[in-house]
Amino acid sequence: MHTAKHVQQLRSSYIREILKAATADGVISLAGGLPAADLFPHMLLQEAMLKVANNRQVFQYGETRGYAPLLEHLSKTFNLQESHGTLVTTGSQQGLDLIARTYLNSEDHIAMEAPSYLGALQVFTLAQATINTVPQTPSGPDIKALKQLFESRQVKLFYAVPDFHNPTGISWSLQTRQEVARLCQTFNVTLIEDAPYRDLRFFGDDLPLVSSFCPDHSLVLRSSSKTSAPGLRLGSVTGPEEWITHLIRVKQTSDLHSSLPMQAALLEILTHPGFEQHLCNVRSHYHQRYQALSEAINTHLQSEVSFTKVEGGMFLWLKLAKGDPMQIAKMALKKGVAIVPGSVFYIEEDIQSPAIRLNFSYCKPEQLATAIQLLASVIALPK
Amino acid sequence: MHTAKHVQQLRSSYIREILKAATADGVISLAGGLPAADLFPHMLLQEAMLKVANNRQVFQYGETRGYAPLLEHLSKTFNLQESHGTLVTTGSQQGLDLIARTYLNSEDHIAMEAPSYLGALQVFTLAQATINTVPQTPSGPDIKALKQLFESRQVKLFYAVPDFHNPTGISWSLQTRQEVARLCQTFNVTLIEDAPYRDLRFFGDDLPLVSSFCPDHSLVLRSSSKTSAPGLRLGSVTGPEEWITHLIRVKQTSDLHSSLPMQAALLEILTHPGFEQHLCNVRSHYHQRYQALSEAINTHLQSEVSFTKVEGGMFLWLKLAKGDPMQIAKMALKKGVAIVPGSVFYIEEDIQSPAIRLNFSYCKPEQLATAIQLLASVIALPK
Repeated sequence: MHTAKHVQQLRSSYIREILKAATADGVISLAGGLPAADLFPHMLLQEAMLKVANNRQVFQYGETRGYAPLLEHLSKTFNLQESHGTLVTTGSQQGLDLIARTYLNSEDHIAMEAPSYLGALQVFTLAQATINTVPQTPSGPDIKALKQLFESRQVKLFYAVPDFHNPTGISWSLQTRQEVARLCQTFNVTLIEDAPYRDLRFFGDDLPLVSSFCPDHSLVLRSSSKTSAPGLRLGSVTGPEEWITHLIRVKQTSDLHSSLPMQAALLEILTHPGFEQHLCNVRSHYHQRYQALSEAINTHLQSEVSFTKVEGGMFLWLKLAKGDPMQIAKMALKKGVAIVPGSVFYIEEDIQSPAIRLNFSYCKPEQLATAIQLLASVIALPK
Repeated sequence: MHTAKHVQQLRSSYIREILKAATADGVISLAGGLPAADLFPHMLLQEAMLKVANNRQVFQYGETRGYAPLLEHLSKTFNLQESHGTLVTTGSQQGLDLIARTYLNSEDHIAMEAPSYLGALQVFTLAQATINTVPQTPSGPDIKALKQLFESRQVKLFYAVPDFHNPTGISWSLQTRQEVARLCQTFNVTLIEDAPYRDLRFFGDDLPLVSSFCPDHSLVLRSSSKTSAPGLRLGSVTGPEEWITHLIRVKQTSDLHSSLPMQAALLEILTHPGFEQHLCNVRSHYHQRYQALSEAINTHLQSEVSFTKVEGGMFLWLKLAKGDPMQIAKMALKKGVAIVPGSVFYIEEDIQSPAIRLNFSYCKPEQLATAIQLLASVIALPK
C-alpha cells in the first residue's frame, strides 16, 4: 500500500539515526532533547500515582477537552482571561499538530524562524503548508524580514519558541516580543507561541509571554515534559475559546482524549507543596551543566567556535569557524559523543553558517566536559 | 481565524448533544458507548498503578512504537507472523486516524458498511476521502454489493467491525469473513479490521479474524478500552511491518508516543493472573444485561419493533415499524431515557429503515428494563 503524498514529503531524518546511535553503551549524548531523568520528581510522581490508583473517576471515558480539575488548575495558573480556554493534549507536540490540522489548508502560508524545531517542521510538512522562514538574530527573529514577509503574502500562522529556543537557546528581547505582537495584530497573523522551556530560566529575569501583547492573535503551547516528566505525555493549548472549540473537535476525531490517570497524576504533581522546590532544583542543576559545558568549550574549543550565551532551557548552539557539521557529527560519534549537525533544523537551502546543537540537560557536568574534550579532538583535526 | 475546509466538513453531531444530556441526573443512558464502570478491574488497576509508580524507566521519553515489554507481550498474544509488527496508539481511535493520515490522499476511495461507527466516519471525512458504503445484512456486508463496488472503482481501504458491530451488534458469519478476505486480495483492497468488542463474546463460538484469511492485505485495530479501562487510552495497530513503519513516522509527528506509565500499567493488567477471570466476569454481566434488555423489548415493544439477536459486544439495533427515530430520541430524553437515533450512523442519504441504537453495557439490568418501559410509552404514542 502506498503512503499518501504528504507523508512522502516527510524527510527521513538523520537525527533519528543519530538518536538511536546515541543510546548505545558508552556514548555520551548531547544529541537528544531529553530532560535529566536523574532530576525527575520521583517522590512526587510516586505519590501522585498512588493517589490516582484510588481515584475511581479516572478510568472511564472522559471529556475531550481534559480532566476538569486539571483544566481548572491550569486556567488559574496561566491566569487566562475569561474569553480564553484550555485544551489538554498528549504532549505539546499534539497541540501543534492539532493546530495545523484544524487551521491549515494545503499551501497556506506559515512562518517560522530559521533554524527551527524539527517537530514543527514535520507538522507543517505533513499539513502541506508553504513554509516561509525568517533569520534569527541573538534577540529573536529579524523584525525587518518578518515585516517584509507579512507584507508580501497572507501568512496564517507564525510558529515561534521565544524562550530558550530549540535548537539555538536564544531568548527574545522584550522589544522583539512587543514588535512581533504588533506585527501579528497589524497583519492578522496568529502567533503560535511554543513555550516548553519557559520554566527553565536559570539566569536573568522572566520576560512576558509574547502572546500577552496580542492575546487574541495567539495560541500558546505548554508542556509538562520538561518540568514534570515527558513519559506522562501531557501538554496544553490555550487561546480564544472559539479557536479551542475547533481544536477539540479535531482532537475528538484523533484520539477522543488524553489519558485521564495521567492528567489526574499531573494535577497532584503541580499542586504538591514540593513542586516549586523541585523546579528550583532542576533550574540549578541545568545552570551547573550549562556552565560546565560553556567552560569546557572556552577551554578546549575557543578558537574554532563561537556561541551566544543562553539564560535557560536545554540547548547551546555552537557556530563553527570551519568544517562540515555532518562530518563532524559522524566522526564525533565514532569517538563516543553524539551531537546534532545544525543543518537538520533548516528547510532545504536557507542554511546559515555551519553549527551544531549541544544539549546540556541530559548529561552530568563531568560527562559534558569529557564530551567537549573529545569533540575538540574532532573539530581540530586538519581537513 | 477560519478553520480548514476539511474541518468544516465535519458534521456538528447531534450525538454529542444527546451524550451531554445523557449525563444529567436521573437520566438512564442507553445512548453512549461506555463500558460498565462498576465492572472495571479496580484491584488490578490499583496494583498496576502501584507497581508502575516504582518503575523509573517509564517517565522519560520513549520509543514512538511503544513500550518494548508491552509490544513483546502483545505480539505474542496476537500470535503475529514474523513479517508483521505492532504499534501502540492512544486508543484504537488514534490507530484509525493514523492509518487515514498515512495512507489516504484526498478523494481516495474507501468503503464501509452502512450503518457504521461514527468515529470512523469522522476520521475519513477529515481525511477528505470519498466514502462508499455497502448495506449490512445479518451476516455481514452484502457481498454482491461489495464486489460490485470493488469492481467499479479502485477502493484503497475497507473499514469494518466484523465482531459485534457498532451500531448494529451484528457479527459476520464465517463464510462472509472468507469471502470478504478473498475480495480484498483479488481487488488489492486493504482491510481495516476494527476489533474493539471482539473479546466481549458472551454466546456462541469465536470466529477467526477476517484478517487471518488475508493477513498481508490487512491492518488490525485493537483496544484496551472495553477489556481493561478506556481512561488509559491505549490501543494498537498490527499488520505488515512496512506499513507499521510508515504509521510510526506519522505518529511521531502527531504526539511522539503514547503515555509510558499507562503502557506499563496495561502490561501489568494483561499479565495479572486475575485478568482472565475479570474478562469472564465482564462477559457474564454483559450477557445478563443483554438478556434483561431483550426480554424487556419482547415484553413491552414486541409489535412495534424488531431486532437481530447479538452474541456479544455492547449494542442492540432496534428497527422500528414506524415513527421518526430523531423525534423518539427527543421525546425519550424528556422521559429520562437517552438513546441514539440510527440516522447519525449513516452518511447523508443512504439511510435504511428507521432504527435506534441501544447500549446495554453501561446500565444495570433493572435500569435497562425501566428504560424500555419508558421508551415503550414514547414509541406507542399515537402520531
